Amino acid sequence: MIWIPAEVHRTVKSMFGVKALAFDVFGTVVDWRGSIIREGAEWAARKGLRVDWAKFADRWRAGYSPAMDKVRKGTLPWTNLDGLHRMILDELLPEFQIEGFSEEEKESWNQVWHRLTPWPDSIPGLSRLKQKYVLATLSNGNVSLLVDMAKNAGLPWDAVLSAELFRHYKPDREVYLGAAELLGCRPSEVMMVAAHVGDLKAAWASGLRTAFVSRPNEYGPNGKADTADGEQFDVTAVDLLDLAEKL
Amino acid sequence: MIWIPAEVHRTVKSMFGVKALAFDVFGTVVDWRGSIIREGAEWAARKGLRVDWAKFADRWRAGYSPAMDKVRKGTLPWTNLDGLHRMILDELLPEFQIEGFSEEEKESWNQVWHRLTPWPDSIPGLSRLKQKYVLATLSNGNVSLLVDMAKNAGLPWDAVLSAELFRHYKPDREVYLGAAELLGCRPSEVMMVAAHVGDLKAAWASGLRTAFVSRPNEYGPNGKADTADGEQFDVTAVDLLDLAEKL
Repeated sequence: MIWIPAEVHRTVKSMFGVKALAFDVFGTVVDWRGSIIREGAEWAARKGLRVDWAKFADRWRAGYSPAMDKVRKGTLPWTNLDGLHRMILDELLPEFQIEGFSEEEKESWNQVWHRLTPWPDSIPGLSRLKQKYVLATLSNGNVSLLVDMAKNAGLPWDAVLSAELFRHYKPDREVYLGAAELLGCRPSEVMMVAAHVGDLKAAWASGLRTAFVSRPNEYGPNGKADTADGEQFDVTAVDLLDLAEKL
Repeated sequence: MIWIPAEVHRTVKSMFGVKALAFDVFGTVVDWRGSIIREGAEWAARKGLRVDWAKFADRWRAGYSPAMDKVRKGTLPWTNLDGLHRMILDELLPEFQIEGFSEEEKESWNQVWHRLTPWPDSIPGLSRLKQKYVLATLSNGNVSLLVDMAKNAGLPWDAVLSAELFRHYKPDREVYLGAAELLGCRPSEVMMVAAHVGDLKAAWASGLRTAFVSRPNEYGPNGKADTADGEQFDVTAVDLLDLAEKL
């Protein structure tokens, strides 16, 4: 039996009766592509490598969805995101003709995802939202990845929640419902915040509120980022400061 | 498969190779007894009640261990700590002849555990330790209880880990080993910090490092708090500032 407390204990008035905000992280809060390109360029300069880091970042990220799907469909046993990133990395290194790295160097490079940097509005926006709401991550990234990232970048989470806690990846409903339960909330008291339509649609289907945040440069200047056009969300914002204003 | 990253990515030098500190919370970080007595007295003054709040707090806490044992032995299905606290409260109210409260009032009073206040050294001690280590709760309290408490009191956790995540209560080994796994650490890279010998012995048996913190007033001036006499811990400290000094 899980005890879901009554609503009496939190008295701050909030929009839609929302008590907690659950954030997608990669792309919504941090700029994974820019971070990988930046660190890759520094690394390559030290090592004397020539690599198209934008392409490398895009290929790494492109491997993520099919890898997670294998876990979601049960063809791969539960593997956390560090593990999936490493599996993809081990395929990418020969593809990009990056050779001769030690296990330690590969591991250190795999951990670039623990060091991603936030969009410029993320920390001021989260800091404002934190005054009124419980702020939780709700990411496919594993707990230690999210904890390291928060510590490194100064992201002011109240709780680090992850797909890893439920051994299900988003968009499985176990993730959204499990997060609401851990936060002591009804699903409708939690608002999912994401730059991705699919994540928000799945959250909505589990009864959560939804906030879309535009991140037009998530996939770079020529990339195709999601837009809110033709979609129905409770809130639509251009960044996290705008979201704080609207909530 | 869980990916445990290599040690290369954290370079701060720490005692014993410890990367993360896992804190017991009730009694070690917050003064549950003093908090309940204080809030009880305020509540009683408003309601015109006469209650021995010290006795009430002690009885509430005394019900906790047998209630958890029922879960640990499987005679009660998984119930989070809010749920256990409420079951005990429902027995205590008639015992202390506290009558006529609405469901909302009972629930609000049950949530006093979400509002416990820290010992005076806790926030400055944790703030110092946070500069060097990942700080996680590792409490039998449920996630929302710990999140509310941290937000209310300003406790600077990097991660809120709870028995609830593992559906096992301490001192079950699943809790200690599960916490290390989520933190991306080997058990020996995590140090359990507690004012309770039993918690530390169980952590040690799972391969964690141990730090004992004295809380002589946990059970009040006549209570019998644990001491480190005759025990072997990696570190023994008189409070969390002393622990920061020693680590």
